[in-house]
Amino acid sequence: MQFQRETEALGQVAGRLSWDQETMMPRGSADQRSDERAAMETVLHQRRTDPRIAQWLSHIDESELDEAGRAQLRLIRRDYDRSAKIPADLAAAIARTVSRGHVIWAEARANDDFAAFAPVLAEILDLRRQEAQALAGGGDLYDALLDSYEPGAKGADLDAMFGALRPRLVALREAVLDKPQLPGLTQSFDEDGQMALTHVLAKTFGYDMTRGRVDKAVHPFSSGSGDDVRITTRTVPLDPFNCLYSTIHEVGHATYEQNVNAAYRLTPVGHGASMGVHESQSRIYENQLGRSRAFTGWLYGQMRDTFGDFGIADEDAFYGAVNRVKNGYIRTEADELQYNLHVLLRFDLERALVSGDLAPADLESAWNDRFAADFGFAVDKASNGVLQDVHWSAGLFGYFPTYTLGNVYAGCLYQALRKAVPDLDAQLGQGDTSQALAWLRSNLQCHGGLRSPRDLIADAAGMSPSEEPLLDYLEDKFSSLYDL
Amino acid sequence: MQFQRETEALGQVAGRLSWDQETMMPRGSADQRSDERAAMETVLHQRRTDPRIAQWLSHIDESELDEAGRAQLRLIRRDYDRSAKIPADLAAAIARTVSRGHVIWAEARANDDFAAFAPVLAEILDLRRQEAQALAGGGDLYDALLDSYEPGAKGADLDAMFGALRPRLVALREAVLDKPQLPGLTQSFDEDGQMALTHVLAKTFGYDMTRGRVDKAVHPFSSGSGDDVRITTRTVPLDPFNCLYSTIHEVGHATYEQNVNAAYRLTPVGHGASMGVHESQSRIYENQLGRSRAFTGWLYGQMRDTFGDFGIADEDAFYGAVNRVKNGYIRTEADELQYNLHVLLRFDLERALVSGDLAPADLESAWNDRFAADFGFAVDKASNGVLQDVHWSAGLFGYFPTYTLGNVYAGCLYQALRKAVPDLDAQLGQGDTSQALAWLRSNLQCHGGLRSPRDLIADAAGMSPSEEPLLDYLEDKFSSLYDL
Repeated sequence: MQFQRETEALGQVAGRLSWDQETMMPRGSADQRSDERAAMETVLHQRRTDPRIAQWLSHIDESELDEAGRAQLRLIRRDYDRSAKIPADLAAAIARTVSRGHVIWAEARANDDFAAFAPVLAEILDLRRQEAQALAGGGDLYDALLDSYEPGAKGADLDAMFGALRPRLVALREAVLDKPQLPGLTQSFDEDGQMALTHVLAKTFGYDMTRGRVDKAVHPFSSGSGDDVRITTRTVPLDPFNCLYSTIHEVGHATYEQNVNAAYRLTPVGHGASMGVHESQSRIYENQLGRSRAFTGWLYGQMRDTFGDFGIADEDAFYGAVNRVKNGYIRTEADELQYNLHVLLRFDLERALVSGDLAPADLESAWNDRFAADFGFAVDKASNGVLQDVHWSAGLFGYFPTYTLGNVYAGCLYQALRKAVPDLDAQLGQGDTSQALAWLRSNLQCHGGLRSPRDLIADAAGMSPSEEPLLDYLEDKFSSLYDL
Repeated sequence: MQFQRETEALGQVAGRLSWDQETMMPRGSADQRSDERAAMETVLHQRRTDPRIAQWLSHIDESELDEAGRAQLRLIRRDYDRSAKIPADLAAAIARTVSRGHVIWAEARANDDFAAFAPVLAEILDLRRQEAQALAGGGDLYDALLDSYEPGAKGADLDAMFGALRPRLVALREAVLDKPQLPGLTQSFDEDGQMALTHVLAKTFGYDMTRGRVDKAVHPFSSGSGDDVRITTRTVPLDPFNCLYSTIHEVGHATYEQNVNAAYRLTPVGHGASMGVHESQSRIYENQLGRSRAFTGWLYGQMRDTFGDFGIADEDAFYGAVNRVKNGYIRTEADELQYNLHVLLRFDLERALVSGDLAPADLESAWNDRFAADFGFAVDKASNGVLQDVHWSAGLFGYFPTYTLGNVYAGCLYQALRKAVPDLDAQLGQGDTSQALAWLRSNLQCHGGLRSPRDLIADAAGMSPSEEPLLDYLEDKFSSLYDL
């Protein structure tokens, strides 16, 4: 229906305004931009809660709809029901408080002062718990929050899955770090060369530049749906992998949006199915494909062509440099092995916050205890610990687990992909991703939001989502790399 | 009121979407962008015609408002009354027809085929006449259209003013073109140098880059209000004046928006007062200041610093090169002397179209006759004549005269400015525009839409708007340049 299509289009406009803010906006425009974004949010909120939607929904004859029509109906109904359950006063209070919370968090992080952030965190948590109560109807509060990001997922299921991941990841991490360190990069890489390779990699991973663009920003991100999906990257002279692998990661998100069936454009099924499924695409591009021995062999040649001799002797050494495991505090800088341990820590802590088992004031010590237990060394300051991520200051409880769920999904998909494309390594060794990407496109990406995340992954991977393939993959890869 | 402020903010968002389309948008995103823009237009139209506005207006006690409050009320009432008078069916028909008309015009222009454009032009004219009838309530149709762009202006007044301009401009043009041609530029100017000078000139003319930015686009334009006002420019290797003077022109528009009293931001008085007043600022920056002997003397030094010896011997020769008059078909490429003759031609023809005295099918021959009369040579093809401008294909009848009205206003303002800043030439000769810009800011720009365009100019210039100062200025300038 036209109203819905307009709302989708307005959502795209709001997204483009965010993109502009991170890439193009003059620095003196921030106050006015707040007004502009707030006005767009007001319009979108009014439309999403428009009482006419309930009328339309009650008049639709489902038996006349095809699969896409039924999926659209399901998503419209879901969004409307959720929006209608949240009192306008509460929604406004959340918006105001997270806006304030973000500023306080940024200052607290700069000062390594968790105590300064704890009171507003308690306020944000309280408001989000109220929202969860409104949504849950007597059910589990954490599940109600999680459902915003990963429809249908349950905290208890994730707890079981993550409980199986954690001990094997901790053990693998310890075994690897007992071994001699692999050599890394030591020289500086000029930014023009990094950006040139960024464009090569974006193309290699199927990004359609006629319907997208690459700009620099402080944080890499992907933005938009359908025919206008833009990514950003950044360059760090001493760490070209930061630029190259965040590009591949964002291209995973972006091509997913570009590859959704064009017939779904500007409808609720015209987007990725969930945050977890989105992350499965960005991570399989970045890790299972991009950090594979085969692909890094090809990338080594590209790096040599771009930068000349950069102190890495051969393809095997380069594969080691790309995948070396080392201690670190920061989730977003973590290697493939340790990344999920960072996420699991946050998942357990935020579940305890939402259930009331953990008081916000006690979060820092809980964080530091858990970090020491899983990573074997102590957090030195809050900005390297509990204050490192923006999410909780934005009220995003229930978001973190989608990162690891995405990795689990990527593990399942990669297992199926290897069966479907037996010649995969030989292709990746030539920088040829075409069959791998075509498989992902036709088995998963093209469907957009047609099916539930879990069904979509199960259909594509030919198995119920499980942590086993990811664990097997990581244990194989790092055992071989570190000669365990 | 909050509703109005949100509408203003949404208008800014829509404007930024247009900016994005001309500067950043990937070429494959055009279809989706149409949907996005249409959705924004739907929202804006609904808000501008929201029946609650009439209720609010009827409950406001004007005696409690200050000058700004009364001006806001006047502008809100004016917009609402205009919107309410236009039937929704008619507005939709106009939107559809000009969208089609634009495509047909572009193809007709490429083929130099006016006959292919005439039928849709007739449709557009008919619809806009219907709109004018709805607005005019028995009054003059052309005035009703003109009022959208220049509130309060009357076609008959402009006719008298332009009637006084035309013979003296035609005579001046003939006298100048009887004289030997002044030398122009002959070499190529690298684009990086042009862009570097663009930034120097933007700063010199007071553009606040912390609340704006400069990008390249096919057509130079200024976009936005308040704290986010962006301009574009373009570079032509053989014609650096195209880049430099369109930059100064757009900076005139942009600084006007930036300099409106910050208290008016996101209100109806937070913009320039009219198209004509806007053009007065862009033109006084570009011409009376930017093309003056004093300022070009300084600019000559900047050009030499940037490009080295570029074949112009001294400041006087450079002043001549900047201001040389030569025959041409195209309004947007016209020199300061001939520009208004192009506009006057369009004004007379569009008034005849709206009154019904001229049939759309006869427009091309009427154009060509008038062109030959005023410019002394024949139009060679429709793309150099009646099809050169986009305006009529977009239904913008009543827009053209604001260009010349802007020049007339600039003439009045410049006369007053010279009295207020007796030392102006010495300052401009140093590249110092600060006193001139401060005078424009405090006497005109800061007021935004507080007063009617005519009152605003009259207050700033200390005289009722008249064509005399512009004519005196042009006759002085070109008599001296061409030794008449």
